[in-house]
This record gives sequence, C-alpha cells and structure tokens, in this order.
Amino acid sequence: MRMNDNVRRVTIRDCSIGGPDLTVMGGPCAIESREQIFAIAEVVAASGGRFLRGGAFKVRTAPTTFQGLGWDGWRLLREAADAHGLLTVSEILEDAQIEQARRYIDLAQIGSRNMQNTSLLKALGRSGMPVMLKRGFGCTIDEWLHAAEYILQEGNEDVLLCERGIRTFETATRFTLDVAAIPIARARLGVPVIVDPSHAAGQRDWVECLTLSGVAAGGDGLLIETHPNPSEALSDGPQAVVLSEFPALMARARHVAAAVGRSIPVALAMSAAVG
Amino acid sequence: MRMNDNVRRVTIRDCSIGGPDLTVMGGPCAIESREQIFAIAEVVAASGGRFLRGGAFKVRTAPTTFQGLGWDGWRLLREAADAHGLLTVSEILEDAQIEQARRYIDLAQIGSRNMQNTSLLKALGRSGMPVMLKRGFGCTIDEWLHAAEYILQEGNEDVLLCERGIRTFETATRFTLDVAAIPIARARLGVPVIVDPSHAAGQRDWVECLTLSGVAAGGDGLLIETHPNPSEALSDGPQAVVLSEFPALMARARHVAAAVGRSIPVALAMSAAVG
Amino acid sequence: MRMNDNVRRVTIRDCSIGGPDLTVMGGPCAIESREQIFAIAEVVAASGGRFLRGGAFKVRTAPTTFQGLGWDGWRLLREAADAHGLLTVSEILEDAQIEQARRYIDLAQIGSRNMQNTSLLKALGRSGMPVMLKRGFGCTIDEWLHAAEYILQEGNEDVLLCERGIRTFETATRFTLDVAAIPIARARLGVPVIVDPSHAAGQRDWVECLTLSGVAAGGDGLLIETHPNPSEALSDGPQAVVLSEFPALMARARHVAAAVGRSIPVALAMSAAVG
Amino acid sequence: MRMNDNVRRVTIRDCSIGGPDLTVMGGPCAIESREQIFAIAEVVAASGGRFLRGGAFKVRTAPTTFQGLGWDGWRLLREAADAHGLLTVSEILEDAQIEQARRYIDLAQIGSRNMQNTSLLKALGRSGMPVMLKRGFGCTIDEWLHAAEYILQEGNEDVLLCERGIRTFETATRFTLDVAAIPIARARLGVPVIVDPSHAAGQRDWVECLTLSGVAAGGDGLLIETHPNPSEALSDGPQAVVLSEFPALMARARHVAAAVGRSIPVALAMSAAVG
Repeated sequence: MRMNDNVRRVTIRDCSIGGPDLTVMGGPCAIESREQIFAIAEVVAASGGRFLRGGAFKVRTAPTTFQGLGWDGWRLLREAADAHGLLTVSEILEDAQIEQARRYIDLAQIGSRNMQNTSLLKALGRSGMPVMLKRGFGCTIDEWLHAAEYILQEGNEDVLLCERGIRTFETATRFTLDVAAIPIARARLGVPVIVDPSHAAGQRDWVECLTLSGVAAGGDGLLIETHPNPSEALSDGPQAVVLSEFPALMARARHVAAAVGRSIPVALAMSAAVG
Repeated sequence: MRMNDNVRRVTIRDCSIGGPDLTVMGGPCAIESREQIFAIAEVVAASGGRFLRGGAFKVRTAPTTFQGLGWDGWRLLREAADAHGLLTVSEILEDAQIEQARRYIDLAQIGSRNMQNTSLLKALGRSGMPVMLKRGFGCTIDEWLHAAEYILQEGNEDVLLCERGIRTFETATRFTLDVAAIPIARARLGVPVIVDPSHAAGQRDWVECLTLSGVAAGGDGLLIETHPNPSEALSDGPQAVVLSEFPALMARARHVAAAVGRSIPVALAMSAAVG
Repeated sequence: MRMNDNVRRVTIRDCSIGGPDLTVMGGPCAIESREQIFAIAEVVAASGGRFLRGGAFKVRTAPTTFQGLGWDGWRLLREAADAHGLLTVSEILEDAQIEQARRYIDLAQIGSRNMQNTSLLKALGRSGMPVMLKRGFGCTIDEWLHAAEYILQEGNEDVLLCERGIRTFETATRFTLDVAAIPIARARLGVPVIVDPSHAAGQRDWVECLTLSGVAAGGDGLLIETHPNPSEALSDGPQAVVLSEFPALMARARHVAAAVGRSIPVALAMSAAVG
Repeated sequence: MRMNDNVRRVTIRDCSIGGPDLTVMGGPCAIESREQIFAIAEVVAASGGRFLRGGAFKVRTAPTTFQGLGWDGWRLLREAADAHGLLTVSEILEDAQIEQARRYIDLAQIGSRNMQNTSLLKALGRSGMPVMLKRGFGCTIDEWLHAAEYILQEGNEDVLLCERGIRTFETATRFTLDVAAIPIARARLGVPVIVDPSHAAGQRDWVECLTLSGVAAGGDGLLIETHPNPSEALSDGPQAVVLSEFPALMARARHVAAAVGRSIPVALAMSAAVG
C-alpha cells in the first residue's frame, strides 16, 4: 500500500493511474438523456473526477429490463465528457463493438459477468485499448488475475483491475466488498486496482462506508454511480449516490486518501477543461 | 419430479429429452486424439449414452494451459459420434463459431463462465441450435433462468439447463452440487435439467455419489466426464471417471432412475448405430 | 457407499445405525401438545421410522419467538415414543440438562449453532450418551469432523453425524444440502451420517428431492420434520412435511434405498412395539 | 458514521466506548508466559491501546492443539494489564467460568463459534459483565443482532459487537471482512462495533489494510493480535502483527481515524499507568 511499490502506472491521455493521485470515475449506471449526462459530468468534474462513466449497452440480468441507449448513449457520453474535460469509461459487451467504440470510449470496461469471456478478453487485448477488468462476483482473486493475463498476453499492458464485491450469504448488501483483495491483487499482478463501492453496497446508505474503506485499503481509484434523481433512474437507482451529495462524498474520500499518503485532486482547472 | 409435470420435451434428431428416459452424455473434458475419442465413444454408446461430449475450444482459467484442438477436435468428435450412433455436445465460445459449428455439434453448450455473456446467449438464440445452458457457478437459480430467457426470447425453445455445482466455502469438493436447483429450475422454467456431477465433485471419488443424487432429485440427464487414462488427461483428469468403470456407474444410475420412475436405456441397438 | 465399508455401527437399544437398514427419524420441529406428538408418533412408527424427534428447548435465532415446552415437552416425547415402540432424539442445549435428559432422550442432538460449543461437546462426550452432531451451517467438513473428535476423545464412540445443509448465496432454499459431504464424512471419520433434508430445503416442496438425494448419496438415515397441520406449527412450519404425506415420502425413499443396496423397514411390528 | 448518531456509549471503568475516541485492544491470540504478556502489554499501552487481549481457554477447531493456560493465563493477563494501566478482554467459554472470571476480565468476549450458544448468551446477560459479541463467521448481520438481543433482554446493556470476517469462497484470506456490516450493525442495534482485522486477514500482510478499512468504515475500536515473535506463537502466529511493528500500525490507524473525525489517543499517561 506504500507508494514505493511496483505497481505499473497506466497512462490514458493526460491521466496517470496507479501513482499518488487517486483516479475518480463517476457517472450514472446507464446514460439516459443529454440533460442527465451533462448535469452529471459537470458535478463529477467539479469534484475532482477524471472519468465520466455511463453504460450504453447494459448487461442486465433479465432481457426485459432497460438495455441502454446504445450508440446514441456513447455519443452523449463523449460529448458530455469533452465539455467538462473528462475521459470516458464504459462497458463493452462484444468483440464487434470494439473498433467503433474507440471514438467514444477511453477506457473499456469488462463487466463482472464477462470476466471469463475469453473471447472478449483476447479481442480487447489485441485492440490495444486501455481495459478495466471487473472482478467476477463469483470468482477468486486468482481467477481474476488469470483473466487479466488473457489481456496482457496479447501485448496490451494498459490494464486496470476493479474490485466490486463478491457474492456471499449476506443479504444486507448486494455484494460483499472484498477490501483485502485490493492490496492482494495489486501486489500479485502489479497493476492498479480501482474500487467500485456502488455495486457492492447496492444501497446508497452504505456507499460512503465502502468508498472510504476502499481508499484506506489502498485503492488506486474509485468508480461510483451517481444520478441527479435516483428514484427515477432506469437502472440501479437504489445504489446511486444523489448527485448533489457527490462533492461531499469526494471531500470525505479526500481526507482518507491524505491519511494514507495519497491524494484526490480538488477539481480540474475548469479553464483547461472547457477551454 | 413426477412425470405428469409440465416440462417441455426437447427433441434433437431422434432423441427426446425431458421424458421418462434420462439422457446420458459422456466423454472427455477435452478431445485429445482420434484414438482417445473413438475409444470413449464406444463405451459411452455401449453403456446407454446418447451424446458424446468433448471440448475442442476450452475456456481455461489461465491462458497458458491446454486450450483444445479446435476445429480438428470437432471433426474427430463428429466422426466418433457418428461411428457409434451418438449425438454430439460441445461448448461454443464465440458468436463467430456458430455457423460452422452446426456441422459438428448437435447440442451447443454454454459454459458456466459464459452464462451471462448476453451476446453469446442471443446469438445462439437466433441460430436455432439446441442449447444447453450451464449454471454460472456464482449465480442464483433466478439469474440462471433469466439468462435462459435471453435464448428463449429469440424464438429458440430447444433449451436445456445444466446444474454443475455452485461455489461455496467448502473445499473438499470443487463446487457444491445444488440438488434442489434441479426440481426448482424445472418447475419454474419448464425445461429439462441435466446434471453434471463431474465439475461439482472435482475428484472422481465423489462423482458416483453426485450422479446418483442428481438422478434421485429428478434430473433429466447426466453429463459425465470420462477418460481411458485420467492421470494422463490434458484437462481435468482428477474428476474424470475411469472409462472402464463408466458402465458400472451407469448400471447404478439405472437402478436409481428406476426407483424414481425413470429409465436409462441399456444400450443403443448397435446394429442401428453402425449400420 | 458400498456396504463393505468401514463405518462403525452405532447401537442404541435395539436399533443398529450404519448398517444396511436406514434409520428414519421423524417428528415435529417443536413438541407442542400431547395430541400433536402422539398423532405424529403413530404415523412415524407405521411408516418405518425408528426415532421420534421433537424439540423441547429450542435454539431460535431470536429470543422473542417460541422457545419450546421444556421438560414437559420431553416427558410427552418419551411417552409418545414408548407408546409406539420408538426411540427419542432431541437437541440438548446445556451441560446442566444432560443428567436429567437421559430419562427422556435416547439420542442427544447437538444443533448446528452449537457444533463448535466445545464445552457441550466435551460434556456429552463424558456422559456416554449417544450423540448426533449436526454440521454447523457455516462450517467445513473438516471442522465438523474435528468437532466430533471432541466427543470421541472423551471415550464416547456412539457418535452420529448429521448433514443439514450449508449456507450459500442461493436463497431459493434455506440452506444448500451438501450431498457430497455424506460419503466424504463417512469415509474420513468412519461414523454413520444422517441426512436432514428439512432444514436444507426450508420449504416442504423440496424436501422430497433432498430426501431421495440423501438416500442415493449413501446416507445412513433420515431426520425429517413432519406436522399434522404445518400452517399452524409454532416453529418451522413451512418446511414440515404434512403428516398425512409422510408415509408416501417414506415409500419413495424406500425405493431409492433399495436401488443403492440399502433398505428402510416397512414398519415396526406393532405387537412388539406396544407389547 | 457521523458522531451525531445514536450509538449507546459503553463505559468500562474509565474507558468510554462508542464515542469519538476509538478503543484499541491488542494482545496475543493465546497467553503463553509472563514474559510474553508483559512485553506485549507494555507496547500496547505505549501505542494508545486501552485493552490487553489474550486467550486463556481457547476454542480450537481440533482438540489436539494447544488449548491455553487456563486460570493461570488469566492471572497473568490481569497482572500485565494492571502493570500498564490496561483493561482486559478475553473469551469466556462456559457459564461456569463467569463468576470467577470477573476477577480477571473486564470485558467478556463471546467467540465467533459461540455466537448462537444461547445458554452462554443468557448467562453473560444475567452476569451484568460487559460483553463483546463476535459475529459468527457463517451468520448474517440479522442473526448477529438477534444473538445480541439474548444478552440485552437479560437487562445487560453493556454490549459491544465485533466484526471479524465472514466465510466466503475466497481463500486468499482466512475470512472476508464485511466492512459494510460495521455501519449497518451500528445503525440497526445502536451499539458500538469493534473491528477484528486479524482473524479476517489470516496473514499479517493484510492486517494493515483491514485495520485501516475498518477505521474508515466507522468502527468504534480495533481488536488486533500481536506477538513478539509470531513464528514461535503457539496459536495463530501467521496472523499476528509483529510486536515491534504495532506502534507504526497504530500511527497509521490514527491518521485514518482523524480523517473520519475520530481519534486514537497517542498513549496512556504512563505515570498514571504504572503509578
């Protein structure tokens, strides 16, 4: 967890991940409208966020629920991010999306349900796109690292891991965040580990606790769902932090980061962002 | 578990699945050679098996282990099955394989690690190929049934489920076979459920116990790994039943099937098979 | 699972456990009244049962739920069992109960929540009473066998194990019956293993499936909850088999037992029982 | 997690638990010798610790391992604590120990394996001794709170909870610390929650990560195993922090505590302690 460790830094445009600065990624579960994503982008950027997250092609458990805006969603994500000096992260579901996705997505996320989809792992490995690999909720740390090797062995070293909770018998939260997995995965594979407190918590009441724990455990970044009006969200509303409370959450995370020798930038210089 | 239930019968060529006869599927984890797969096909057919299983494209946890013979493997599987009057079942990993796979594979298996790969689920749904959907080892029964709906909603009703064990804290076996899931999934979705005792056991010593339990619990078929010489198997040797013991295992399963009002045919009429 | 194995037979009065005959134990979760327990005893005996089960001192999760009839319950249990030629099995909670309990209880059960209560394990070990040790729902097979050793090392060899399901992420059943644990525990410790399908299922719909699976897996006996009117039961009603259906369940278990080379006696000779 | 919450403060002698100051409890898994426990007490007190922990009657998984020094152990614990101005916490296993234990133990710990030993819960409830109830490693938060109610309903309100990790499929750590359980249990029952990172980690390499996470999550105290020479410890050596590194660990915990608006006192005024 000390900064003298041997974690490879992953650089995406002007953003260096894995060093002293924590990388904050915020946004909605699903991109729903121009108004929604622009409103969120503004707050994320003003709170020190570097990435705007948002799903356009959703892997939902059931086929009858909202499946996302698709390519239109990605266009909106790109525009909103560009307007506020942010980078973009979004889940890619199929090999066939990769080539087009490059125009919109700076960091390709492999979702928990696809962690062992070796076809997708290899295709993203070959693509050379930066990849964030979420841990399968039923998978061990070792299986997660083996999955990452499918990307790395294609010559793509821009790999981040993302701990998002594992499935246990406890039902008070949606998943159980495995905080020890953060330093263990960092140490074993030597790549940065981002923490997703939102899916682990499943309810916004416990997102703060898991955010601060993840920072204290040595996470290299945060991936947090936020929405202006969670009760009307089309997907995963219960776990989204209310957008108006996002800055305060980041302020608290910043204190804990400082306590473990890391930092979260206060905000992007907005002149640069919108210049 | 009674035969007056409303489980849809799935018919593949001359084989009806979901009725009084249990459907036995046997074969190696991975197809390794012509000699290997023909030897196995002979015993499987002689023991009452209807499907020859065998992996050609393996999803292994780590990228450096044996990944299968690929298309050559499928050609061998087809030849061996045809020579002994058997049907074929094998795992399909990518959308791009489906069209060609039809020539070799009668029943497309979706592996545990791909249970929520919605791209693959939809593509196999559209293909119209019969599909056997294995349960994700970290997934609930409801998630499994939702995944099956991705196939069904494409208009493909030839769907089988396969219970193969879930991940628990117990390490004496590789996974824990969830026998209650067999009647629950059958009742909720109304499709046949095949039981895979091999992956659950992880060691051949416990395959018999899980085989008999799965039959007693009302499984509509068995998917069992067997190998002439497991200690030299290139994949999952420890859990493969020794081929010479496969007939005795089927004999015992036959007794239990009869006890719950089902049957396992004694053997294919070989004249028909090789005629 | 074969009968030529080295499982020690435990003899309690005229009942030998661990041999070819399966030992059936049936009764309510909690003893509620004379009428209730006598009605149940009659059916259990007539269906081939050898033990009448029933809780008098209940370990409930919450302190405000029904805690049992206490000593009056045990007196009723003894009377009902004696009237129908049955033996008794009931949970003992405290060292202080043991001495008095001998008058009422033929087989002392250690409940799942007390599996690692070493004080109670040792006290029952010293008492010499036959003991049935239920598996802790969060405990591995090895921990269960170590707990049994606390009894055995006091010189008490009349030990039975009882597999009753472990806690997993699946919520469709109350617990997940670990059928492989049956032959594994038998083989490793060499003592009989009884199967409790009721607590694993949590709902009577799935008790039959787990009963038959447990017999097929080589269980040496069954511990099943039954109640004349489960909807009015004071404890665990949803998982109790309706008493009027108990004989049919035993008939089906008998078929499976025969299929694996075991037997369940049709019924006690009532003349002997009441003579 | 804010200090304006409604968590009851538990006062043991001059120590108030549940307020702004975190309560540090440190010591060996098992008391082994006078030299060992005095050396540890000195460092714990000098690092801001308020309680000296140490087991005298050990509940070990297997009966053949070291079971503790018994009453001699408790006498040593008391002496070492008194010499350095510390309070004592130790596990009580049996009702019969309680009366005598009062002379040696300020805070009675109920271990994870005894969380649902209702006989012990009630006896400690009646005793009026302050009690710290560890979470059963296979138990939900709700079951844990129900167990605490067995103590509370006897009129004993001096109850602390202790989160020490739950059992999951992950084997890289001994248990998985459920950090969300800390604020959830606090909020639901309104009592202080202590965090035990040692048993969750199982290896000292990950104790720091879990310590800091637990503080960030709002824990009211820490229970940490430490030993001068862990490789020679008679019990749980691998998870013990090396005593010489304990002060640095506390210094880091102090930084995180400050970041969430709490504090860990620098050290006891030694004049008072040894006066």
